[in-house]
Amino acid sequence: MTESAGTPENVSRRRFLTKVGMTGGAAALYGSLGALGLVATPANAETVRFVPPTSTDLAATSRRKKVAILGAGTAGLTIAYELGKAGYDCHLIEARGRPGGRAWTVRGGDKHTDTDGVTQVAKYDKGQYFNAGPSRIPSHHVTLDYCRELDVAVEPMINANAQGFYYNENTPTTDFGPLASTRITHRQAKADAYGYIAEILATVANQGALNSLMSAADVERVVAFANSFGGLSGGKYLGNNRRGYNTPPGAGDQPGTVAGPPPSMSAVLQNQLGDRFAFEFGFDQAMMMWQPVGGMDRISAALADAVGKHRITYNAEVTQFDNTAQGVRIAYRRNGKLQRLDADYAVVTIPPMVLKTIPSNLSTATKDALTVPVGSNTGRMGIQFKRRFWEQDFKIFGGVTHTNLDVSGIYYPSFGYMSRKGVVVGYYSGAYTNLSVADRVTRAVEQGVKIHGEVYREEYQNSFSVAWPKVPYSLGGWVQWPGGRGAAYLHLLQPDGNIYFAGDHLSYYTAWQNGAFLSARKVVMDLHQRVTSTN
Amino acid sequence: MTESAGTPENVSRRRFLTKVGMTGGAAALYGSLGALGLVATPANAETVRFVPPTSTDLAATSRRKKVAILGAGTAGLTIAYELGKAGYDCHLIEARGRPGGRAWTVRGGDKHTDTDGVTQVAKYDKGQYFNAGPSRIPSHHVTLDYCRELDVAVEPMINANAQGFYYNENTPTTDFGPLASTRITHRQAKADAYGYIAEILATVANQGALNSLMSAADVERVVAFANSFGGLSGGKYLGNNRRGYNTPPGAGDQPGTVAGPPPSMSAVLQNQLGDRFAFEFGFDQAMMMWQPVGGMDRISAALADAVGKHRITYNAEVTQFDNTAQGVRIAYRRNGKLQRLDADYAVVTIPPMVLKTIPSNLSTATKDALTVPVGSNTGRMGIQFKRRFWEQDFKIFGGVTHTNLDVSGIYYPSFGYMSRKGVVVGYYSGAYTNLSVADRVTRAVEQGVKIHGEVYREEYQNSFSVAWPKVPYSLGGWVQWPGGRGAAYLHLLQPDGNIYFAGDHLSYYTAWQNGAFLSARKVVMDLHQRVTSTN
Repeated sequence: MTESAGTPENVSRRRFLTKVGMTGGAAALYGSLGALGLVATPANAETVRFVPPTSTDLAATSRRKKVAILGAGTAGLTIAYELGKAGYDCHLIEARGRPGGRAWTVRGGDKHTDTDGVTQVAKYDKGQYFNAGPSRIPSHHVTLDYCRELDVAVEPMINANAQGFYYNENTPTTDFGPLASTRITHRQAKADAYGYIAEILATVANQGALNSLMSAADVERVVAFANSFGGLSGGKYLGNNRRGYNTPPGAGDQPGTVAGPPPSMSAVLQNQLGDRFAFEFGFDQAMMMWQPVGGMDRISAALADAVGKHRITYNAEVTQFDNTAQGVRIAYRRNGKLQRLDADYAVVTIPPMVLKTIPSNLSTATKDALTVPVGSNTGRMGIQFKRRFWEQDFKIFGGVTHTNLDVSGIYYPSFGYMSRKGVVVGYYSGAYTNLSVADRVTRAVEQGVKIHGEVYREEYQNSFSVAWPKVPYSLGGWVQWPGGRGAAYLHLLQPDGNIYFAGDHLSYYTAWQNGAFLSARKVVMDLHQRVTSTN
Repeated sequence: MTESAGTPENVSRRRFLTKVGMTGGAAALYGSLGALGLVATPANAETVRFVPPTSTDLAATSRRKKVAILGAGTAGLTIAYELGKAGYDCHLIEARGRPGGRAWTVRGGDKHTDTDGVTQVAKYDKGQYFNAGPSRIPSHHVTLDYCRELDVAVEPMINANAQGFYYNENTPTTDFGPLASTRITHRQAKADAYGYIAEILATVANQGALNSLMSAADVERVVAFANSFGGLSGGKYLGNNRRGYNTPPGAGDQPGTVAGPPPSMSAVLQNQLGDRFAFEFGFDQAMMMWQPVGGMDRISAALADAVGKHRITYNAEVTQFDNTAQGVRIAYRRNGKLQRLDADYAVVTIPPMVLKTIPSNLSTATKDALTVPVGSNTGRMGIQFKRRFWEQDFKIFGGVTHTNLDVSGIYYPSFGYMSRKGVVVGYYSGAYTNLSVADRVTRAVEQGVKIHGEVYREEYQNSFSVAWPKVPYSLGGWVQWPGGRGAAYLHLLQPDGNIYFAGDHLSYYTAWQNGAFLSARKVVMDLHQRVTSTN
């Protein structure tokens, strides 16, 4: 399965629905089906309001409960952070040498070895970085609340920009017509697609085709909308300045000349770029979007600081974990030495693909459930260019170029505007996973050249690529539930003895930090309720 | 004439065209008419490439030419800056105590007296500000090139945000139907309008109404577009998660429930919010937009620094300016004392509404031309709130609420996210010009309460309002050319003897700093060419 979370593809409606069902989960599917009426609303779909545990809740307990948390990614850190507020004695065991898990910001000097033994060292300049994992935060995610609470400064993450390009190349099955293999700005694609769609609306309205569908007053309103939305001239789309200018308006006697003429209606329809517009209306993709200043890992760094260094053991690989009569026992290897941690409870945030290989005395049902989810095949390359040609030559300041080339998207950096160099995300795709690092570079640059021209090759300086299925302790970009969230998903929502499970994969926000936060909060509440009701 | 540059109103197509003709100038009008084919392209509409003068250009001249520049706004400063590169001896005479003219950033402690004698002192907290004049920079404006050249850091100016609201209240002439006086997020307005428009397209396509307009393959593509664009279910719009959620997707067994059901097609059409969407596709309004970090006046401050303090005389009101046999003579009053400046040339950037009252020996034709343009009636209020309730309660981080209330728009600050307080632009409108300062506050807050509820009143802390027609030395938000750019405009593009005219009003970018920069560059080239060809 090759997926790019949130990256639109030029898909048929059926494929779109299959896709959201697969990656966006039932919530997205419900939405797409127009839940109300078509799909019964689950009875338990109420807002579960998070109430952080407080120390006064535990006054009645005889002693501080000890909680072992396996994995110091967003979920694990949040559990320690929230339980810590109430005085729980939390200990995080983390296989990596850093917190954050997949919330990984790659900077110059960072060294990484894949499961296949291939090592890369990032050569980015000081101040440059790229987010290999989560990279955008919608305004409504709880992630932003944690940024506020933890004093993590945020800045806009530019997820849509009129100056970005669309680019569709013909495939063996689709002929995109005269505009195939042509870079077209979002600005121009929208002006043309909306222009012609509006012309069609105005035409059928004038022909009386809408009269049976609505009142005469509403027909008039559709026509008014069409004129405004399409920028029509006498009911026709003839181009307009939303497309941009060949000669911009200037001083003196220079009114400018609009870029044009527009391509024909048929050429615009055949290029199918309009099918990509809905990406920008997506609940989780619509602007405004946000990113922490300095890299996505600023959130996990702030969480780790809040939790406290003494509570996190890095470079510690869990070798076994078991329920015991008194609680749980965790074994882990650190610096070649086997160590042990006994606790009252454990919360495991290790992805199922990794977890299922670690010995434990979990029930057979739990072990079976852990074998169901699979890791998604996706990856990213951050390319440092010697010059911000996308800004200087193309007036693209942040934003995305969407394409059906296998790079899927080119993401321009949302920081360091107008400085000298920058790191562009050269692909967001699973298509590069099984290429050598060198071949990834060659291929990604080749695709970039198709869109930006030779400048993309000339200004290339260095790059670092992440293939998530090959990243130790992750083994996938995110977790997928083949066939949807079924019995296995439901099973893992419950503890196995004293062992709880958490992570974005146990939420309806897979592949988003929001899911990790929400899952963490749920387990915090579940565990805290058990503790307070037991004691 | 009451105008808000770039602020859309709910206008009919004809009114829209009249509007762009009035404020956007012929360029916008050409564009709207689909210049190509409908309107002949002006023969002289070529790109005039700016080549800054250099000192080597002047090697042949016997002495450095002295240039008096009246007005240290963006145009005047740019002229001094660019001519200065070639060694011209420039002197700026500025009536205000600061550079920048209408590029005015209001901060705590700023004191201002209107032409009617009313004085306000801004009470904003340290670090808070609002831009009373230009406030956004599109990615393609030369303004951004100057920011780069002058090392002025920029940050995104959020001109569109899915979380912002639309709000239409019934008027004596328009009934907006069941959704009148209801705040609706951009997210939801788009989901619903696009949903129903798509449903109409799919329906008429299925009825065969498109068959005479295009090929069968293109009809299929229109249907595919409609399904994607509208998020349809079986050809119908039944709502979808682009609208948002009543219960958001969460952890565990919580898929969420989509916000709905959507209003009826007729209700959506009657509310006419779709007529506002095109604002976001505008050539000069489409995201990404930018603002200098710290306030728009950082650009003029940087220009003033580059020009040099010794070249700018502040608090100097021009009392007379004349062509002389040798060049020009400028008289100005400073600290009650009349002073004189002789120079070879003068460039006057004072707005025509002010300039026409200053004695001079300009030709009658020039004086007549100066009486043609008029100042636009517009203004803004910056309201400091004690709490960023728009972020905390409404998840609105930057962006705009558009409304047909007379505030026209509410602009949420694009900086200081997640901090405690913030300054919101409470109106952008000429409707408040003739109210007392206190009445402006009462009325603006009352309108805000309609949209945001009582929180808008409760969190109000202080405000400062600017009524541009009453601002000394400006007498209007920008210059309007009644009937369009005609003979008077063309006349002022030429020097009157040794006196040149510059400013955004002498460009096709009225009301944008871009226009001031472009006009300045044109005059710099005109003057430099005259000097080099004369000597």
